[in-house]
Amino acid sequence: MIKIVIIGSGNVAQHVITAFEKNETVSLVQVYARQENTKISGIDTYRMVYDLASLREADLYILAVSDDAIAAVSEQLPFINRLVVHTSGTASITAINDKNRRGVFYPLQTFTKNKPVDFSQIPICLEAENSTDFRVIDTVAKSISESVYPINSAQRKALHVAAVFVNNFTNHLFQIGEEICREHQVPFEVLKPLIKETVAKINDLSPMQAQTGPAKRNDQTTIQSHLHYLTDDNQKNIYKILTQSILENGKKL
Amino acid sequence: MIKIVIIGSGNVAQHVITAFEKNETVSLVQVYARQENTKISGIDTYRMVYDLASLREADLYILAVSDDAIAAVSEQLPFINRLVVHTSGTASITAINDKNRRGVFYPLQTFTKNKPVDFSQIPICLEAENSTDFRVIDTVAKSISESVYPINSAQRKALHVAAVFVNNFTNHLFQIGEEICREHQVPFEVLKPLIKETVAKINDLSPMQAQTGPAKRNDQTTIQSHLHYLTDDNQKNIYKILTQSILENGKKL
Repeated sequence: MIKIVIIGSGNVAQHVITAFEKNETVSLVQVYARQENTKISGIDTYRMVYDLASLREADLYILAVSDDAIAAVSEQLPFINRLVVHTSGTASITAINDKNRRGVFYPLQTFTKNKPVDFSQIPICLEAENSTDFRVIDTVAKSISESVYPINSAQRKALHVAAVFVNNFTNHLFQIGEEICREHQVPFEVLKPLIKETVAKINDLSPMQAQTGPAKRNDQTTIQSHLHYLTDDNQKNIYKILTQSILENGKKL
Repeated sequence: MIKIVIIGSGNVAQHVITAFEKNETVSLVQVYARQENTKISGIDTYRMVYDLASLREADLYILAVSDDAIAAVSEQLPFINRLVVHTSGTASITAINDKNRRGVFYPLQTFTKNKPVDFSQIPICLEAENSTDFRVIDTVAKSISESVYPINSAQRKALHVAAVFVNNFTNHLFQIGEEICREHQVPFEVLKPLIKETVAKINDLSPMQAQTGPAKRNDQTTIQSHLHYLTDDNQKNIYKILTQSILENGKKL
């Protein structure tokens, strides 16, 4: 079994710990939390540590800490030449102090506290500095997920930026949709099946092929009528910019 | 059984016809298509008509034609004082010629040709000029869908504008995500579980509560690094506008 230590007790740490606990490939040796007395569900007291000096030997140390803390925490580790990975979508592999062998173990998902996730469906993006280390994290990743990808730091950055568009910005459009509904006393529920279908479509079609709507058709009558209808300047502005972007797309075809 | 005639043979007409054909509440008397010899799957030749003058008597005429054609086609109908509804999200109920009793039967979904849909999950928005007519279309709608809403023309317009945000614009963000992935040789597949979770979240949380990401955290380091990373001016511009909009939101709280 691959011996693992998790350093951190936040959202990502909690979800990774749960996934490792039902696992025959890895043995979760210890969990480090900065705050004394932090409890983690499923982790007995004797495996919790609150002092980096008490960390035991392991095959892999997973730094599930905030991006800002990676450099400092990895510098404070009381050992050298072991395999240490972070879980960040944005930090470079070089954020980890180079006294240890370095890698990245990035589960690409939006984690909500206390909301269980099915880790087998979460893509894990891996990076290591040599093939031996890569094989270790690859084995660990494949023990909890069906989708494991080798992704270097430049690619991971692209993924993170793309994720902002498809997750954060998409959610913000849902919020605008909800605001428009609320303003006109329509239940937002009415739109949820449409939202589900929007996502279901891209299983079969590319987003370019799946595009519909007034901007796609260059239906200026509807576009102008919508702009006239919107009362909020910010919503109007977003409507204009995204409509223009879809129109420009049409010209590329 | 409620006798229905469908006028139109496009996407919406096709899907509504399929839903009505497996139905005990309604009897689909005829389907009108403008183009002679149009065939509709499941509709035998004797129920197809290509001339408005050949329309038979029915309890409900569903005009599943393009928005632009509603006024002209409804004017050409060779009868008066019957119940005629359109299926448009944008057209007013008054787009239908007033020689007949008018209504709206708007299934709020994005229909793709040849992709079967589960009509029971599609919200249908109804409007009529009197309660007797409303009851007819309500019975018909409930025979094919579990989500039926009375929605007046002003509310329907709000829904349509909101739908542009949550469906058309969301899909466009997926496309930008795909472009960023392609530019950096990352498979777009990696992002699909994240997209699914983005949508799954709003079953439990409001979009405002579900919001995450650098803009939500006002993480200017990440925001500036993403803006620096994006090479396409249009993508940069959309990133700025949506980030700003999420930041403004934070101030409202």
